[in-house]
Amino acid sequence: MLLRFTKMHGLGNDFMVIDLVSQHAHIQPKHARQWGDRHTGIGFDQLLLVEPPQMPDVDFRYRIFNSDGSEVEQCGNGARCFARFVLDKRLTTKRQIRVETKGGIIELDIRQDGQVRVAMGPPRLEPDNIPFLADTQALSYPLEVEGQTVELAALSMGNPHAVLRVADLSLAPVTEWGPKIEHHPRFPQRVNVGFLQVIDRQYARLRVWERGAGETQACGTGACAAAVAAIRQGWMDSPVRIELPGGTLSIEWAGAAQSVMMTGPAVRVFEGQVRL
Amino acid sequence: MLLRFTKMHGLGNDFMVIDLVSQHAHIQPKHARQWGDRHTGIGFDQLLLVEPPQMPDVDFRYRIFNSDGSEVEQCGNGARCFARFVLDKRLTTKRQIRVETKGGIIELDIRQDGQVRVAMGPPRLEPDNIPFLADTQALSYPLEVEGQTVELAALSMGNPHAVLRVADLSLAPVTEWGPKIEHHPRFPQRVNVGFLQVIDRQYARLRVWERGAGETQACGTGACAAAVAAIRQGWMDSPVRIELPGGTLSIEWAGAAQSVMMTGPAVRVFEGQVRL
Repeated sequence: MLLRFTKMHGLGNDFMVIDLVSQHAHIQPKHARQWGDRHTGIGFDQLLLVEPPQMPDVDFRYRIFNSDGSEVEQCGNGARCFARFVLDKRLTTKRQIRVETKGGIIELDIRQDGQVRVAMGPPRLEPDNIPFLADTQALSYPLEVEGQTVELAALSMGNPHAVLRVADLSLAPVTEWGPKIEHHPRFPQRVNVGFLQVIDRQYARLRVWERGAGETQACGTGACAAAVAAIRQGWMDSPVRIELPGGTLSIEWAGAAQSVMMTGPAVRVFEGQVRL
Repeated sequence: MLLRFTKMHGLGNDFMVIDLVSQHAHIQPKHARQWGDRHTGIGFDQLLLVEPPQMPDVDFRYRIFNSDGSEVEQCGNGARCFARFVLDKRLTTKRQIRVETKGGIIELDIRQDGQVRVAMGPPRLEPDNIPFLADTQALSYPLEVEGQTVELAALSMGNPHAVLRVADLSLAPVTEWGPKIEHHPRFPQRVNVGFLQVIDRQYARLRVWERGAGETQACGTGACAAAVAAIRQGWMDSPVRIELPGGTLSIEWAGAAQSVMMTGPAVRVFEGQVRL
């Protein structure tokens, strides 16, 4: 069969999006690997599958695969693209939608200016829920990395994040420490690693080493995690602007059990058809 | 307007191919830059434009742009994809076609097994026609590269090539010497640089540093240039198989003013539509 897809990006984090509401196809991890190749396939950071809901009171189910075939719990840039996709494809007429993901339910709001605001759910701070091996919950944790001790915040935004504050982002050891922290035994499901330079109380710059992907142009959940870590530790006040290499996201968080609100762009690049 | 395109690849060298015979659009270098971005665009090594001929006795005109917007004279992998494209899109019913390129006329032959055989034209060996600064034509030339002397063949396959023989391809200084030779003042239009390890008289392995692109998976004209250099210097006999990182090409050359014949695969990946 010929399968229709749309290529989109949010801050340069790019996606192949497939409507499995109006198309019936069985997409497997091998397809993500085959299509994910940027030379012999379609090329993307993640494959997004738009499916009918399996739970009550949600509009869609949204699944995310990396180009290595692994399934991801959550992707903030993907969520924004997802929202624009279902509106553009007229799979819904609502501008507020509730979506079921592997990382929990998220709520999406398409603003009149085309930017998408995503309620990413509350951060999970309990070590067991990240998961992170620690005796008690803390604002930050010392972690032994090859004989050195680094201080980091650890939390989940549906997926696990570590956040390190650095004095100068351009000198941050992203590609050196990123993989070491990603694979640290205290993060049993590995971890995304954010390096945060706080510029003022409402503006920071961030680089993220993504689990399974390496350094990326923009990690949406990483921006949320960094904002939560900075607000909790008293370095910043909500709302904050987080500047990533690919562009800027606005993050709001009212604290405690409140949902993290992320606002940013979603761009449709082209429509495609591929033989399945 | 919505512009139709096809994404193809030949040995992992990938192309966005646009039919400008049945579609009327003015494609500019800025489009190649915009669409060439692998995250925010369509992503390709080269953009191929299929145009009506401007000369007598040819079937099509074929133009090639790099993703930096620069126009290229010739691309062997692209030529094979071009041939499959015009047949698949029924822009011709011929299986032998003559095509006008910036690097000269090439002849394409689509075999029954789907592989495409391309008559790439004769190699140009005269230094002025490469262009390469040398007093007289020779089988090989010594070149000063940062105090060291390297021995290389220089020829044009519609685009300029330097070919260096190495003992062990896995140890070849492709990324170190590639850019230095590419920008050497004796190559006034810069040069593609091939590193060739001869395995036996009919089989060799090749890595190519491409002008303006860096090391690539497979350079079709580079394979032709390497085969010509190896046959001229008495290291190999036609036909030769040249194994590149992306796959293998078969090259035939009868010597002197004969056309170099290159045979290899061309794969259609997906169909797309993008707003112009």
